[in-house]
Amino acid sequence: MSHTTAPAAFYTGERTVSTSEAALTAPAPGEVAIDVAYTGICGTDLHIFHGDMDSRVTLPAVIGHEMSGRIAEVGPDVEDWAPGDAVTVMPLRWCGTCPACSAGHSHICHRLDFVGIDSPGSLRRRWTVPTGLLVRLPQDLPLDRAALVEPTAVAVHDVRRAQVAPGERVLVVGGGPVGLLIASVAAGAGGDVLLAELDPQRRAFADTLGLHTVDAATDVPAYVEEWTGGAGADVAFEVSGAAGGVAAAVDALAVRGRLVLVAIHGQPRPVNLHRFFWRELTLIGARLYDRSDFEAAVHLVAQEKVPAAQLISTVVPLSDAAAGFAALESGGSGQMKILVDCQAS
Amino acid sequence: MSHTTAPAAFYTGERTVSTSEAALTAPAPGEVAIDVAYTGICGTDLHIFHGDMDSRVTLPAVIGHEMSGRIAEVGPDVEDWAPGDAVTVMPLRWCGTCPACSAGHSHICHRLDFVGIDSPGSLRRRWTVPTGLLVRLPQDLPLDRAALVEPTAVAVHDVRRAQVAPGERVLVVGGGPVGLLIASVAAGAGGDVLLAELDPQRRAFADTLGLHTVDAATDVPAYVEEWTGGAGADVAFEVSGAAGGVAAAVDALAVRGRLVLVAIHGQPRPVNLHRFFWRELTLIGARLYDRSDFEAAVHLVAQEKVPAAQLISTVVPLSDAAAGFAALESGGSGQMKILVDCQAS
Repeated sequence: MSHTTAPAAFYTGERTVSTSEAALTAPAPGEVAIDVAYTGICGTDLHIFHGDMDSRVTLPAVIGHEMSGRIAEVGPDVEDWAPGDAVTVMPLRWCGTCPACSAGHSHICHRLDFVGIDSPGSLRRRWTVPTGLLVRLPQDLPLDRAALVEPTAVAVHDVRRAQVAPGERVLVVGGGPVGLLIASVAAGAGGDVLLAELDPQRRAFADTLGLHTVDAATDVPAYVEEWTGGAGADVAFEVSGAAGGVAAAVDALAVRGRLVLVAIHGQPRPVNLHRFFWRELTLIGARLYDRSDFEAAVHLVAQEKVPAAQLISTVVPLSDAAAGFAALESGGSGQMKILVDCQAS
Repeated sequence: MSHTTAPAAFYTGERTVSTSEAALTAPAPGEVAIDVAYTGICGTDLHIFHGDMDSRVTLPAVIGHEMSGRIAEVGPDVEDWAPGDAVTVMPLRWCGTCPACSAGHSHICHRLDFVGIDSPGSLRRRWTVPTGLLVRLPQDLPLDRAALVEPTAVAVHDVRRAQVAPGERVLVVGGGPVGLLIASVAAGAGGDVLLAELDPQRRAFADTLGLHTVDAATDVPAYVEEWTGGAGADVAFEVSGAAGGVAAAVDALAVRGRLVLVAIHGQPRPVNLHRFFWRELTLIGARLYDRSDFEAAVHLVAQEKVPAAQLISTVVPLSDAAAGFAALESGGSGQMKILVDCQAS
């Protein structure tokens, strides 16, 4: 290699991210080195930044798991990949032997290694990973929007868990990046989508994407009842993370309605189980994605079936990755997806 | 008809049930009069007795919805039924036009008439009903155990909602009559069943039925983890109605486990939604049954695939129906299913 170090952004604890030179690792057999183009910062990264996940990260930590790039160098015995190939990484490594893996649900492996949290991630200029994590991108796909493949895969997985069928009425509670991606993917599956969001700026942005929105501060179940002619929504996605979001989604559902739980709720929430009984509702937990979701997400981003380009609100250089965290933390509702340009200094 | 009155048990409010003569209604076109053999008293009847459902019942009310009997008289234009036919009643009448009925879920009709609650029931010697409610019984099926077809249909529906597959590990939380029926039906579907129950007398009874039991006061999730080699239960049925039952069931489930909510929870319960996300769990509401469940239940009772006869703990005469309510209220864990002999005075 021509260089022995390259810059990387390190989370060092106590709400601090700083960029410095890190030693480069030459790709071993079965590995490639990627020139990372962009890394997105997501809500989980912000949780890490806030110190909420210090039990899972090893300091100093290179985090980041939403990325795109091109292969710079291939290790020995790598056959299917070549320098220049556009790639993203599906950031999951599983054990293959636990009960979840044995049952075919490797993405929920009991000992899952989420790359970028449990092991080092992509907030760096050059990144060495095993080829098993690579997902091929079209060579002509702009790499900024390609960094949104990972959150799009989350949305694809959530919509697949819900089994949204054409013509179904779909309520999405929460209009951040993942909520908007779910709304787009559900609409692409034929759903008639309504997005409930508290923030007027986020609603206005959703309007520009052509989405049907409602103020989440109003009586959403009553709005849905009128919208659906008294039936209720067939599907709801809880993407707000708020107790009120859970309650509104449960109350808005039709008989046999399905509620997909996307947001992470750190504490037990009061749930109206009587309504689950009375209307035979289903609550469906959804976590991450599998390879088919990821490949579908590449397709949707490439074909502009999801508003990946529109969601990018800020791009910061790797040399000032800290500014990306500061912007996400303080930028409020105006910020959607913040990317770190990992080649820029 | 030879008589113009016959005895019936009336709930008159304030924890009072009394038996008196009631006017008989001759069967109109499309109706039959049934000589009711037995009527079971269930938890819902006890709720009514306690006044908790006074908004739904019209006093004085003849309640009762778990029954068996023989047709005594058929109305004009009734072709498929004849005096002497053994029957039970599926106690549901739906509107046929609401969103739930239109979607094919008539048993969750928005305007469901639950016969025995919303309209008069079977705690009487002779009962006139529309033929559409009748379900045929084998002529040689003892009518006492046939009165357990209705709760068996609940169990059939619950197990069907869970889609229990052969070899799956199944946890049933709550060992009352419905819990025991679910355990039996799930075992019949090939499930490997564990019953968690607090009461030692109920556990001992379950043992006599050949069920694998665990004290619900112990750490049930830890027990299940060991029992399943670290995987967790594939399916859980919450039949206890207690907040602790919900928590134990959630914590005991494997990755992609399904929790069927059978018991009625009158208030919101704290639910560990993080675990639903983390293990991609599913919560499934289940209410009542449809005709196919009811017909399957007739089959299971007739073939002694469920312990209907064993569950009958007390039989009281219609003339002293009040004693049945008193026994269920005070009888504690020793009481399973109490039947009222509707021909006995």
